[in-house]
Amino acid sequence: MSRVAVKKRILRVRAAARVREFDSLAAEEPLEIRLNGTPLTVTMRTPGDDFDLAAGFLVSEGAVASPDDISTIRYCAGATVGGENTYNVLDARLAAEVPTPEPRNFYTTSSCGVCGKASLEAVRTVARWSTREDPVELALPTVADLPNRLRAAQRVFDRTGGLHAAGLFTADGEPLCVREDVGRHNAVDKLLGWALRNGRLPLRGTVLMVSGRASFELVQKAVMGGVPVLAAVSAPSSLAVDLAAEEGLTLIGFLRGDSMNVYTGERRLRTGVQNVTSGAGDGSAGARSPG
Amino acid sequence: MSRVAVKKRILRVRAAARVREFDSLAAEEPLEIRLNGTPLTVTMRTPGDDFDLAAGFLVSEGAVASPDDISTIRYCAGATVGGENTYNVLDARLAAEVPTPEPRNFYTTSSCGVCGKASLEAVRTVARWSTREDPVELALPTVADLPNRLRAAQRVFDRTGGLHAAGLFTADGEPLCVREDVGRHNAVDKLLGWALRNGRLPLRGTVLMVSGRASFELVQKAVMGGVPVLAAVSAPSSLAVDLAAEEGLTLIGFLRGDSMNVYTGERRLRTGVQNVTSGAGDGSAGARSPG
Repeated sequence: MSRVAVKKRILRVRAAARVREFDSLAAEEPLEIRLNGTPLTVTMRTPGDDFDLAAGFLVSEGAVASPDDISTIRYCAGATVGGENTYNVLDARLAAEVPTPEPRNFYTTSSCGVCGKASLEAVRTVARWSTREDPVELALPTVADLPNRLRAAQRVFDRTGGLHAAGLFTADGEPLCVREDVGRHNAVDKLLGWALRNGRLPLRGTVLMVSGRASFELVQKAVMGGVPVLAAVSAPSSLAVDLAAEEGLTLIGFLRGDSMNVYTGERRLRTGVQNVTSGAGDGSAGARSPG
Repeated sequence: MSRVAVKKRILRVRAAARVREFDSLAAEEPLEIRLNGTPLTVTMRTPGDDFDLAAGFLVSEGAVASPDDISTIRYCAGATVGGENTYNVLDARLAAEVPTPEPRNFYTTSSCGVCGKASLEAVRTVARWSTREDPVELALPTVADLPNRLRAAQRVFDRTGGLHAAGLFTADGEPLCVREDVGRHNAVDKLLGWALRNGRLPLRGTVLMVSGRASFELVQKAVMGGVPVLAAVSAPSSLAVDLAAEEGLTLIGFLRGDSMNVYTGERRLRTGVQNVTSGAGDGSAGARSPG
């Protein structure tokens, strides 16, 4: 059994039936990311693609933007008293000419208080590229099929039911890279790290598809990776929509079957917009389920 | 319109139909929590019940355990250049005799490296009470009805589809308190803060029901609140199950209709265990969906 899933004995209750059997669970373990030897963060993640996760975290923070910005990433030995390598501590070393960044906080800046506006400003200050001018266009059937393609590529979810997925796709819906993790933000960082280490940043012309919801943090990561389109199975938050609007990102939510909500950047969708009517309702969105 | 939901104009695509209308979105705003004047954390949350959120965060961190441990909580003025109160910065003052805690990290301790085992040890060190000896018992039909009761109490979700919920229930399934937030951990902290401020800690004999999944962090919060039973709509992680087993908590996942998976602590469920058979399969759990 890999470190990605773990088997446990459980009691399964199905109406009148009770069965004791083994169940596969999504693995969750802490990962400490160090930068030039100094601890930077600890995240609970599903083991696997850890170097991509660390690299992508540094992209999200605005510390690196090119594969040459990182000189090495390696697991640290000596993490336990006995000197055993837990494979849960990484050290990333920046290239000599790359400044070690201050710990950053995208949720607040000191210049204008703690508020959504300040959070947007923090992203604008740090982003290396703009997604606003990306001319990519997507056909609606391609977008509608993304959840199926993401699910088809999820290897561990079928066993555990406990992993979020994030996938990078071309404008034609071809998968470039798919990653799974107990944390949605980790799955996206693993993609960004994969892109960085393969010299693919900024990710112009691509679509990022995520299971679940679209928070401010996920839109921020899309911006930091130069991704022009973010699609989610469930709802976005208010601040996610604000950031997408500010950065010129196309944000799609409630993507299910052939229906979806387009929150920003609809110019990138070939929708036959001439048929648009204006609704009078207050916007109850039909099917709702937690993501 | 409250700060809990925000209206935005969107394009709604339903098969061949395209409608422009207003949609309600779950509000997301940063909240900075200060402790005795020193910034402690910034979390993205849905505004509302902020004092409970701050108090519950301090419970989760092991800083406080009784209502007398906190002398005051108030919004800080002067958070913007213009001195405007954004209602996004809180300061909690501890009572004079309560020591200001060191910032804590439940994911790692220095004593035995960074690993799941160290994370479990960190909780054991800090927890104020044990849930192991809690004698509460639950009838299966009561457990099976908890998702319905949680959903019935969600006020904002129906409008936005974007909020996680957490509810505290008695052993008979009566709701004590229900909170919603874009972040599941915030919804649970709001409950713990409500309990602290109402003198209800430890929450013996209660059930915590959450939408979505059960991570290590959620089990940790249940332990810190003295809650003996945690039920989730979706999957738990491996480390969540490990912590529940270690702390004697009953952990239920995939709670849907009359079916559920019991990962630990089945002694608290009146299940008619005499009918249990032993499954031969590898435990594919039937219905799976992301939480």
